[in-house]
Amino acid sequence: MSGPAAPTIIARAALSRLFEPSDAVGLALVAAVGPIDALRIACGAVNIGPLADEEVADVLESHGSTSRPAAVQDALERWRPRVADLAPERDLATLDRLGGVLLTPESDQWPPALDDLQLSAPLCLWVRGDASGGIPDLGRMIAIVGSRDSTAYGASVTGELAGGLVARGYTVVSGGAYGIDAQAHRSALAAADADRITPTIGVTACGVDRYYPAGNEQLLRETVRRGLLVAEVPPGSSPTRWRFLQRNRLIAALCSVTVVVEARWRSGALNTAHHAAALGRAVAVVPGSVFSANSAGCHRLLREGGGVCVTDAAEVAELSGPIGNVFAPEPASVTAVHDGLSVEDLLLLDALPIRAGSTTDKLATVAGLSVRLVLAGLSRLEHLALAERDDDGGWRRAHPRGTHQRKGTPR
Amino acid sequence: MSGPAAPTIIARAALSRLFEPSDAVGLALVAAVGPIDALRIACGAVNIGPLADEEVADVLESHGSTSRPAAVQDALERWRPRVADLAPERDLATLDRLGGVLLTPESDQWPPALDDLQLSAPLCLWVRGDASGGIPDLGRMIAIVGSRDSTAYGASVTGELAGGLVARGYTVVSGGAYGIDAQAHRSALAAADADRITPTIGVTACGVDRYYPAGNEQLLRETVRRGLLVAEVPPGSSPTRWRFLQRNRLIAALCSVTVVVEARWRSGALNTAHHAAALGRAVAVVPGSVFSANSAGCHRLLREGGGVCVTDAAEVAELSGPIGNVFAPEPASVTAVHDGLSVEDLLLLDALPIRAGSTTDKLATVAGLSVRLVLAGLSRLEHLALAERDDDGGWRRAHPRGTHQRKGTPR
Repeated sequence: MSGPAAPTIIARAALSRLFEPSDAVGLALVAAVGPIDALRIACGAVNIGPLADEEVADVLESHGSTSRPAAVQDALERWRPRVADLAPERDLATLDRLGGVLLTPESDQWPPALDDLQLSAPLCLWVRGDASGGIPDLGRMIAIVGSRDSTAYGASVTGELAGGLVARGYTVVSGGAYGIDAQAHRSALAAADADRITPTIGVTACGVDRYYPAGNEQLLRETVRRGLLVAEVPPGSSPTRWRFLQRNRLIAALCSVTVVVEARWRSGALNTAHHAAALGRAVAVVPGSVFSANSAGCHRLLREGGGVCVTDAAEVAELSGPIGNVFAPEPASVTAVHDGLSVEDLLLLDALPIRAGSTTDKLATVAGLSVRLVLAGLSRLEHLALAERDDDGGWRRAHPRGTHQRKGTPR
Repeated sequence: MSGPAAPTIIARAALSRLFEPSDAVGLALVAAVGPIDALRIACGAVNIGPLADEEVADVLESHGSTSRPAAVQDALERWRPRVADLAPERDLATLDRLGGVLLTPESDQWPPALDDLQLSAPLCLWVRGDASGGIPDLGRMIAIVGSRDSTAYGASVTGELAGGLVARGYTVVSGGAYGIDAQAHRSALAAADADRITPTIGVTACGVDRYYPAGNEQLLRETVRRGLLVAEVPPGSSPTRWRFLQRNRLIAALCSVTVVVEARWRSGALNTAHHAAALGRAVAVVPGSVFSANSAGCHRLLREGGGVCVTDAAEVAELSGPIGNVFAPEPASVTAVHDGLSVEDLLLLDALPIRAGSTTDKLATVAGLSVRLVLAGLSRLEHLALAERDDDGGWRRAHPRGTHQRKGTPR
């Protein structure tokens, strides 16, 4: 981005520093009067007093907001200490230097998926990396999230899922944290061809100028080089609890499926899953050992009906909807000899002796079938190579390849 | 049981050898005319010909059965070869010698839970063991089923569940097979005090005179000694595929919850689960590694909504309903310092520096709060021992026990 930025972009950049994410009054104000006038009001360029607060509240009310004058007064007081620090053009220049762009709802590249957040949609997205292709469509974005202190099992499953999803053309989205997040980004990058655009996107709780946490710096650099790093807070912002929690709603909103790989009983990953469910997005849950504390949150989600059990990338892809619209194949399984037999033929098969043959009368008694049904059934089983005559003309199980077939019993 | 048995008991004992389990025409006949006349008709004591078949079909039709004359003709033909082998009094004597009793729907001790099977309810139950206390009520019976080739993980979970359920007063029901079944019986017996009646019940696909499979003989002997062995087929009957599949419906019907611990993609345990679901009984599913073929059937059930994810005995007990009506406790979890804080106080807490204190103006800017809210919040956080003043009067995080608190971030 070069040249002077549009006033709307500058206003949204400034507001994203003035407001904490999901500031209800602030976002209602922007929805009511647009970002430029919202910035003027928030900065006090419009005369503020009890009367003006009423006026702002009136404006908000006329747009359906229920913010009371007192809440507006609180909000204006809350924003005021930050006004002096506002320098949106400096922030935009910083982003430009990092090779990034600011996406706003006015831009063609704005992901429509974020509009599902309605009044808590972000003011803008600070995007770092090659965003020329934009942010992939909802149907191509899948979030993989989980514990920071993940186990080897969680890392393995994450690797399989991320690799399998990238191979299917999806972008793997995560939060850039240690553990499952890092493994998701890493495996997505590893599975992508060099010319593949945006195999992974990191959505961070701090400014995109920072590589946080420090131990993931190399990974996040590579994410920026081949994918994208995205935040709703401006460069220089530090990651606070509130911003982590709010960041989770962005991950959930950007993705058609949120996969929780490992999560403790209380976990930020569950927060992301709840956001996804509230937005009507699919939540996929990876099961694990009942003895693993790192799966307790996953099992809690499954138990409470908060997500669908998934075991591989194909099952996750199936949840993502239209893309390819391929349903997960049933795993190949051994076909049993008795598959497709009628109840009568099943009874007859079980009645056939293994070694010395039996008469049709005896078979009728053992199987609980009429002689007529036994004769008809024997001809079918002989045709299926399941029955044969012994040297004395009696009927027995067919012995495939001359060996005695082991008598299997289902339970 | 001593002395001559009632004609109804003798008739049901005979019919249980004449009919395979769930013989639709046979059971409709018993429902229509009672066991004694049903036996007479089935044995051909009533003149059988095309006309008589019509008459039987009429009787059945008048009782709501849809058996056509041709189906009746087939059934009569099917039963005839076994008539000569009927010796119900000998079978009852055998059971008596084994210390068992025959339960029939006419008996006070008949489990009403079996009536939920309606037209496929068993004709009778051949029960071996001390049945003086009867079969426990539905609400006290929990089935634990799974793979015969179970893993160490499956055995561990089964042990925990069976032990925990017996400790809570439940009876653990299973099929006496290798693997999960055997572990369920074994752990139930191990967890029960010597004077505990019926900690476990084995429901077998063969006659209760046999210990099948042979490798479980010792375990099944102990099950008979301290619990019960139950079958719907008479002594001497061998376990066939059909009887295994039908046996599964008995396990499902007798228990308020069926727990599937491990199951392959295709597994008899899934058949039991489907029976339970069809009867409106709870199905509980133990999750496991996505890499374990022995959990693939469990995950399939969870994925298809065929069961509820459970991880311990308390969660299983919760599904069983009224008994004690105790809900599974939430696992104790570490309480975070920020639990219960308002959004404003959370923002303020994150804005507090770790070492050198900060001014209230600075805190207002960093936290995005008004100075008024910062002052009110600091007083709350100080009260909660989360904020303190440094030597210069600035505000910082409180340092519990004089150490520097590690800055935690949620994801």
